[in-house]
Amino acid sequence: MIKIVQIGMGPLGQKIAKFISERPALKIVGAVDKDPEKAGKDLGTLCSIPVKGISISSSLKEAMAKEKADVALLTTVSDMQRITPQIEEIVAMGLPIVSTCEELSFPWDTAPELSKRIDEASKKNNVAVLGTGVNPGFLMDTLPICLTAVCQHVEKVKVSRFQNAEFRRIPFQKKIGAGLTLREFEEKRKQGTLRHVGLTESISMIARSMGWKLSKTEDILTPVIAEKEIVTSAMTIKKGDSAGVQQIGKGYVDGVEKITLAFRASVGEPESYDLVEIDGNPKISSKIDGGVNGDVATCAITINAVKQILTAKPGLRTMSDISPVSFFQ
Amino acid sequence: MIKIVQIGMGPLGQKIAKFISERPALKIVGAVDKDPEKAGKDLGTLCSIPVKGISISSSLKEAMAKEKADVALLTTVSDMQRITPQIEEIVAMGLPIVSTCEELSFPWDTAPELSKRIDEASKKNNVAVLGTGVNPGFLMDTLPICLTAVCQHVEKVKVSRFQNAEFRRIPFQKKIGAGLTLREFEEKRKQGTLRHVGLTESISMIARSMGWKLSKTEDILTPVIAEKEIVTSAMTIKKGDSAGVQQIGKGYVDGVEKITLAFRASVGEPESYDLVEIDGNPKISSKIDGGVNGDVATCAITINAVKQILTAKPGLRTMSDISPVSFFQ
Repeated sequence: MIKIVQIGMGPLGQKIAKFISERPALKIVGAVDKDPEKAGKDLGTLCSIPVKGISISSSLKEAMAKEKADVALLTTVSDMQRITPQIEEIVAMGLPIVSTCEELSFPWDTAPELSKRIDEASKKNNVAVLGTGVNPGFLMDTLPICLTAVCQHVEKVKVSRFQNAEFRRIPFQKKIGAGLTLREFEEKRKQGTLRHVGLTESISMIARSMGWKLSKTEDILTPVIAEKEIVTSAMTIKKGDSAGVQQIGKGYVDGVEKITLAFRASVGEPESYDLVEIDGNPKISSKIDGGVNGDVATCAITINAVKQILTAKPGLRTMSDISPVSFFQ
Repeated sequence: MIKIVQIGMGPLGQKIAKFISERPALKIVGAVDKDPEKAGKDLGTLCSIPVKGISISSSLKEAMAKEKADVALLTTVSDMQRITPQIEEIVAMGLPIVSTCEELSFPWDTAPELSKRIDEASKKNNVAVLGTGVNPGFLMDTLPICLTAVCQHVEKVKVSRFQNAEFRRIPFQKKIGAGLTLREFEEKRKQGTLRHVGLTESISMIARSMGWKLSKTEDILTPVIAEKEIVTSAMTIKKGDSAGVQQIGKGYVDGVEKITLAFRASVGEPESYDLVEIDGNPKISSKIDGGVNGDVATCAITINAVKQILTAKPGLRTMSDISPVSFFQ
């Protein structure tokens, strides 16, 4: 039985608490959120799960005073700047960490100084720290990396994650900019709220595994334009407006595009799928029909990684340097 | 630059030597085969590769006296009984090992005593030992295990490897029993020459990762019967004769079939592919169109694993407990 403290009780943290409560090998022993609206509330009630006797603590120290955990799950922020001091505090209490922080998935190239701080703090406390999730963390990095195992040589890696958002939650449709005029889309693009965080991290992880030294990376975000009027239960998208978002990340080695990550989510997208294409020997085209549901998958991989993080070498780890994460009963 | 000694200079060992010679990060420094027909021959000539100054040694000791390797690749036999003393000899010289021995891919359940011997010998010498390959070693075990990473729960794992042997080498067509009468097929089945080694090992590896305790395994081999006459450049297969082989492995937990591995190779098979189906949440169906060429893939994964085996924890390791193997330049 692995004892877990969940830090960050937003939608992701709540779903993770639910998943933990359904898994025989895991036990949630504490929950932390500094939001005064949440602190003190009953965990079972907040997450609608049959867990009794745990209330949300406003600090990790308070939560740990009640029952010591073996590992901390951290689902608070997406950026290295803000996650680093949080990690330093947690590892100082002797806890290994699995986090959904997107930039933590492979921060060695994009945030080398902060990576070093985390690496040193975790080594000092003899624990491992991992950033994971469905993307970044799996579909656009770990999975293509694993698939190259059978290749004698690799020239190019391309991953496409295409999603029809028609039947997704309305907040998801809004998040991808469906229904916006192109002017509104451009405004939101500038604000950064449409951006999927993690393409550059995934590119870096792939390049590092392949032994490729990146000379340049790109991350280009554009609207998917509705070719005709689209009517859904939630909105009407006019012809010529945005039906969603397309974001393409590219990694170059000596001017040659070696890595291409294409993410597209739009209302009316003809097909949903996750596709890895490896140009090499042998050529590999591996497709997951229907694609992988991101919400379930991110929570699942986070709790599945708990087993590996407990035996991983101390320090800042990535999905490419711990043993394969899998479901376990 | 990683220095490699190749032990076993059959077709697989020769191809591996070729692959090593094409990879900038690797260098072959020795080759061993106890066959007196091969010992003393020039490696470059035998493998048609531009490697100079290495002759096949009849023993590892002889090969290592010339130049010390960092790691040994071992492609001699498929069974634990014969590979164990070979491994003990190699690790005693301080060399980690990557082997294509099928039964070594996950021997903990099928050969616990020999596994323990290998584990102890390698730990004593502070090196790691790994059995890998395309199958067992990747397509029917490591890959489905990795794909479950995004699952909150898994009910059943099914892997199908279907190959149209029409355009494969004639020895491969013969190996799968194409063109045999059903009586001849049954004779060969009894002799064991049609059997693919490794289904039980793959089932054990998956079960161990999922935390499932197997109550029973099955491994059933039957002919694929030609529904009409098939004429190829190499043979004519009569209607009702064998066009190839089908082998199905099953793993049961408390009487429930939880793991199904279906391997089929026949002349005229309608489609070649590798398919992983995970029944769980989310459901996953991941298909590699055209399938993965086994010869290239086994040699590739063996040399790709060299990088991981050098940093792996000492002892008998499996693909499910070392960091992900990938191509590297």
